[in-house]
Amino acid sequence: MKAELISIGDEILIGQIVNTNAVFLSKALNKIGVEIAQISSISDQKENIISALDEARKRANFIIMTGGLGPTKDDVTKHTLCEYFDDQLVKNERVLEHIENIFRKYVTTPISEMNRDQANLPSKATLLHNAYGTAAGMWFSDRGQVFVSLPGVPYEMEALMRNEVLPKIQQEFVLPALYHKTILTYGLGESAIAERIEAWENQLPHPIKLAYLPSLGRVRLRLSTKGQALEKLKEQVNEQIEKVIPLIEDIYFGTEEDQSIEFLIASRLKKMGKTLSCAESCTGGAIATRFTAHAGASEFFCGSAVTYATESKTDLLGVEKSLIEKHGVVSGPVAAAMALGAQKKYQSDYALATTGNAGPTKGDQGQEVGIVFIGLATPDGVESFEFMMGNNRTRVIQKTVNQALETLYRVLLKAPV
Amino acid sequence: MKAELISIGDEILIGQIVNTNAVFLSKALNKIGVEIAQISSISDQKENIISALDEARKRANFIIMTGGLGPTKDDVTKHTLCEYFDDQLVKNERVLEHIENIFRKYVTTPISEMNRDQANLPSKATLLHNAYGTAAGMWFSDRGQVFVSLPGVPYEMEALMRNEVLPKIQQEFVLPALYHKTILTYGLGESAIAERIEAWENQLPHPIKLAYLPSLGRVRLRLSTKGQALEKLKEQVNEQIEKVIPLIEDIYFGTEEDQSIEFLIASRLKKMGKTLSCAESCTGGAIATRFTAHAGASEFFCGSAVTYATESKTDLLGVEKSLIEKHGVVSGPVAAAMALGAQKKYQSDYALATTGNAGPTKGDQGQEVGIVFIGLATPDGVESFEFMMGNNRTRVIQKTVNQALETLYRVLLKAPV
Repeated sequence: MKAELISIGDEILIGQIVNTNAVFLSKALNKIGVEIAQISSISDQKENIISALDEARKRANFIIMTGGLGPTKDDVTKHTLCEYFDDQLVKNERVLEHIENIFRKYVTTPISEMNRDQANLPSKATLLHNAYGTAAGMWFSDRGQVFVSLPGVPYEMEALMRNEVLPKIQQEFVLPALYHKTILTYGLGESAIAERIEAWENQLPHPIKLAYLPSLGRVRLRLSTKGQALEKLKEQVNEQIEKVIPLIEDIYFGTEEDQSIEFLIASRLKKMGKTLSCAESCTGGAIATRFTAHAGASEFFCGSAVTYATESKTDLLGVEKSLIEKHGVVSGPVAAAMALGAQKKYQSDYALATTGNAGPTKGDQGQEVGIVFIGLATPDGVESFEFMMGNNRTRVIQKTVNQALETLYRVLLKAPV
Repeated sequence: MKAELISIGDEILIGQIVNTNAVFLSKALNKIGVEIAQISSISDQKENIISALDEARKRANFIIMTGGLGPTKDDVTKHTLCEYFDDQLVKNERVLEHIENIFRKYVTTPISEMNRDQANLPSKATLLHNAYGTAAGMWFSDRGQVFVSLPGVPYEMEALMRNEVLPKIQQEFVLPALYHKTILTYGLGESAIAERIEAWENQLPHPIKLAYLPSLGRVRLRLSTKGQALEKLKEQVNEQIEKVIPLIEDIYFGTEEDQSIEFLIASRLKKMGKTLSCAESCTGGAIATRFTAHAGASEFFCGSAVTYATESKTDLLGVEKSLIEKHGVVSGPVAAAMALGAQKKYQSDYALATTGNAGPTKGDQGQEVGIVFIGLATPDGVESFEFMMGNNRTRVIQKTVNQALETLYRVLLKAPV
């Protein structure tokens, strides 16, 4: 079974939004064993939708479209699907009732004909109930292939996938297991790693596939495979990982399945019963945002003092003015003092601090673009580390976040649980 | 001239990464008048790349591929292009020298054959110099169409676009002007707006196109057009915007061209010579991250106290314990006190505070999931506002960030410059 995703709407084509729906859909489908053959974004013109469907059905037997189901004129998906499947719109009483209900409960303006029209659906479609919105999902079976149309609003689409589409796929198809596991390395380039592990890579048994994912100072090695039994696949992949670790011991710092490094840190801290706070200057809150995006963050995360202005490092974190004057605000001693300040103010066990110049111009005190210091306070003391993160602002911030998380995680791995 | 983007590599298809390259490319191309017909993500198999190229050339005359140019085995783009254009690899001395230089200057491991092989390029390709990496960009002209191949690493790709591809497009093609402008509205649903502005929408002159972009409590109305002279297009679009504003006065709060709301706030504060700080609980640093992502943030942004733990609201911001006990940590008075605390600690003119329960479970003190208070301290006093943001964690956080920024922006618009 191969799937294909089609996003309908100009906002992706003009760069107005990022296609995060594709990430959710790919992950969710992969998890239940559905491989994605292609992801396309197209404009909301009838003829483009029709030709995209024609092409997609050559490559895949399961096609999911998102977008174009709203009540307004620029939403043409429903009418296009009627034309494509030689069908017509019929009023669906259940959907109409649901729409009227939403208006009664949540909307202050009266319901209109435009809203009621959203209950008119192609007669050949199986209804997929949209609990959170007025645009119903649709499931079409046509010549042995399935076409699903979902609204483009992320949380409506996600709920429809979880509650309607994924269970229906699992009911109607026999699916293989897919398994991916990623090895995290830090400090060596892609080709240097490839040379070291060449013999190992060459002996990887079919269908295990290796991909190199270099990004911001680290290289992740992803092993992918598919088969019948998930447990067997996990065993085979883990066996290969055991073999490769001795070859990359100095740069290896863990594996992740579906887990981000902040998730690994969160689990570890919770297991240890320890807490964390941050003091962020150049990362401007980006480290805190990573932790607090996940539910349960309050179990270990106390907070972060984003001290962008120099004075605020003194006023909020108690960093001595004289220390800043002596070493400069972008320096190891200030990073360490920020970490100690956060640890004290938030009464946390660990504290992570960043100070640096993300650019694009030299700092007030002549600090080079890209220079970053990371401070880490632990129950045993404090350390600081210096890094050069290049000269692109977004990249400096992201590299610093990654580096800070990795620095913390390495230390946590050595601490007793 | 129509362009098409093809991302090569499995990481997008399995949902491991978001396709941010597509956002950069679409924006950059749109700006110089190149429309995007389709964006596709495909796997790194030779046959998939070839069929994607065949399909793309039916729709577009300018095709940009990203990815698959690394030195490792899973990188097949270069070999595939040789096959597609009936070409062969030839050593490029200039590229070889550049690669050797990078290794001498920045890499601690010795250069290998694998690295040197990156200097072997298809003989028919025009070289696009990659200043930041070892994978050269390539420009092919074939039967009146252009095919460009770029590395997938974002900052390498972005520099190649800026320095090589965009100037070459502008040199070789005559391009129309494209113009988009977006009207920001808050507080009314998509269909209710559509009904109000129906007569206006129907009279929009060709080729001005209207799109409704609903997201997290607000609806943006995008007007797009194309033609010969950019100034003329701007005039035509602005004329239409002048006409529609009276119809939506109560929900209208501005327009953006390429600007995010944090950018509008930043410009306004800089113009006013005023500063801002934040006190973030439920948004966990996400507001600070939005501001600090942009260069020049230090001109107006002092910082943000992310006070996730209840005690830290007292310890860092000086919120009275008795106030928290009396009203609960998720309350209007606490939001207001947090804002005043940040304003004082950071010595800023304005301060924005958030406290709420993002879920997924009820708060310690029984606060409902989705309830959020926003506090805003100004030079004239402090106010707090209550909101219900639904029950999806990510959405609650994002809606709160948007709502807080919008609350602040409305107040700033009324303040004297």
